[in-house]
Amino acid sequence: MLIEYEAAPARVKAVYDDIRATRKTEYINNFWKALASDPATLERTWESVKAVMSPGALDPLTKELIYVAVSATNGCGYCIASHTASARAKGMTPEMFGELMAVTSLANATNRLANGYQVEIDAIFREGA
Amino acid sequence: MLIEYEAAPARVKAVYDDIRATRKTEYINNFWKALASDPATLERTWESVKAVMSPGALDPLTKELIYVAVSATNGCGYCIASHTASARAKGMTPEMFGELMAVTSLANATNRLANGYQVEIDAIFREGA
Amino acid sequence: MLIEYEAAPARVKAVYDDIRATRKTEYINNFWKALASDPATLERTWESVKAVMSPGALDPLTKELIYVAVSATNGCGYCIASHTASARAKGMTPEMFGELMAVTSLANATNRLANGYQVEIDAIFREGA
Amino acid sequence: MLIEYEAAPARVKAVYDDIRATRKTEYINNFWKALASDPATLERTWESVKAVMSPGALDPLTKELIYVAVSATNGCGYCIASHTASARAKGMTPEMFGELMAVTSLANATNRLANGYQVEIDAIFREGA
Amino acid sequence: MLIEYEAAPARVKAVYDDIRATRKTEYINNFWKALASDPATLERTWESVKAVMSPGALDPLTKELIYVAVSATNGCGYCIASHTASARAKGMTPEMFGELMAVTSLANATNRLANGYQVEIDAIFREGA
Amino acid sequence: MLIEYEAAPARVKAVYDDIRATRKTEYINNFWKALASDPATLERTWESVKAVMSPGALDPLTKELIYVAVSATNGCGYCIASHTASARAKGMTPEMFGELMAVTSLANATNRLANGYQVEIDAIFREGA
Repeated sequence: MLIEYEAAPARVKAVYDDIRATRKTEYINNFWKALASDPATLERTWESVKAVMSPGALDPLTKELIYVAVSATNGCGYCIASHTASARAKGMTPEMFGELMAVTSLANATNRLANGYQVEIDAIFREGA
Repeated sequence: MLIEYEAAPARVKAVYDDIRATRKTEYINNFWKALASDPATLERTWESVKAVMSPGALDPLTKELIYVAVSATNGCGYCIASHTASARAKGMTPEMFGELMAVTSLANATNRLANGYQVEIDAIFREGA
Repeated sequence: MLIEYEAAPARVKAVYDDIRATRKTEYINNFWKALASDPATLERTWESVKAVMSPGALDPLTKELIYVAVSATNGCGYCIASHTASARAKGMTPEMFGELMAVTSLANATNRLANGYQVEIDAIFREGA
Repeated sequence: MLIEYEAAPARVKAVYDDIRATRKTEYINNFWKALASDPATLERTWESVKAVMSPGALDPLTKELIYVAVSATNGCGYCIASHTASARAKGMTPEMFGELMAVTSLANATNRLANGYQVEIDAIFREGA
Repeated sequence: MLIEYEAAPARVKAVYDDIRATRKTEYINNFWKALASDPATLERTWESVKAVMSPGALDPLTKELIYVAVSATNGCGYCIASHTASARAKGMTPEMFGELMAVTSLANATNRLANGYQVEIDAIFREGA
Repeated sequence: MLIEYEAAPARVKAVYDDIRATRKTEYINNFWKALASDPATLERTWESVKAVMSPGALDPLTKELIYVAVSATNGCGYCIASHTASARAKGMTPEMFGELMAVTSLANATNRLANGYQVEIDAIFREGA
């Protein structure tokens, strides 16, 4: 069930307004309209997304690339589609997408090799952990 | 079973030599010593790592961050330890690591919200896919 | 391939009959009709579902909530849809669903923080394990 | 790296104090001491845990059961240990734990049967989604 | 908590006896000793393992290889160790293990490429599904 | 975006030609047409698939079964569909598919039991690891 702006209670409208102001677009995507059925989760999730995805030690595009890598690893179709679109909007080129996919698939492969070969962690990697 | 350089057949030694030359270090970590029991997989995996993780449209540090995000998502202890060490060696600061973890955990959370709320993909995200 | 009641061999019909009697509904959902192509797996899976999901130390609704949490974590679209419907039929309110999703997404987030920060298990949690 | 109370900056101490007051125990577990290296993530994560895990439409024990189910599904050793301990502290009996594991493992099994048999979602389950 | 044969109730002893008779060894591995705290799950799990892993259209070694592939994909340390041992006992050579790992890691890689590139399923693969 | 043979650059055409020659079919499935937007990943992935899936210590059908088990575990819809088709083309009977699914689901179940019960690895399984 997707809750549209017009039908939303004030608490949800406030989040929608902030999404629009922050993203500088009128468009509210389905994810938020679905979460709106639980205003507490909507607020908390949006506050987290706004805080975590803003520029910091990592730039917003790098953060989107990480988001896509996680989403592709988990196989979340919605998240892959929405964050790939976000990454493109923030400057991801086809070459960058290609390398993102190459790293993501390689990491998924070597994770299983390390698991399956039961590789013991090198002492050198434990330092400072 | 870890295969040390001295005990390795020529085909394995050649890979170890290339790892050392490429990484400019004598140290061969356990992952490669474990894969060495299957020289074909050792060669193919190393060739992939060398090609994929080298500078391109994405810089090597960004690629390591993606690697850590995937490994933390999958819960591969070995890969988390080794690639976190690699990322630090390539310039990851504590602030960058903090943001990497924040994005990775957020993406894992919202992936499940999108799954559980059965959110339909917006038409706008399907364009150009 | 879905096997309908009329076309089913006796061994499959017996399971369908038991599903109908146990659930007090004529409806057999697609999952069982798909498994019916392997009667041994159909029988074993149904026996497990009947035994595990029946009332015990945990009530049937709590069990459905756990089922949905696992299915959302794994991203199984079919299971999310079918067990969310089951949970609603057993009394899950929209508020309960909202909290279920909030806990599921939070757990998925903190699982990755614990992985990525390589947090050592406290001695206090090992007691009695 | 675990940050102890005495060595923590004021912002981290404030979270530790709130954890102690909320949980009515002096003990701060390693997860929080690890997150403390990133005060923003520490604060956000604790605020989410406090809000999400408090009594609501679902009681705190049911929420812990869901947390354990997700953590066992993801294979997060730290989270399994810590939340199993929390669940016991909130009243989980051995019988309840046994049923929790039975449901969790069953859901993981049937998730893959639904995936592998490519079962189409019944129209009846799509209603109201 | 591991329940030893001597301390086990009759219902558990009966399962242990059947494990010993079926596997032709006195050794009961920790997995079963842990499950023994919930006799119903112990019985159901053992009955499933006995039925599913016995010779059929697939031979027992092939079944163990599949078990290891799943366990490495999920990162279950216990299961990787125990089923790799079982596979070796049933005739898995080092060459077979190397190829098992190569296929498992490749599938994990291409799964994420298919996810990330949002590849639509070919009509030809839908036929007969 | 799917790149058809006629529109493909020479580097991509060379891979398509090799796929056709190796598989003895004109049909190029969507996976490859999607990867073609990144010729380096297309080449590397195809070379890996060709090398890993060819006959060796394990026969091609066994390798396809392992591929399907991993894909069902990960919930990759595309890979489940395409590799189930491949497995059938290589001789997988309905009985073999049923047993493949039974083992895959059982392994996914017991993986979570081993996780959740925090089962310690038997010393006997560590030997020779």
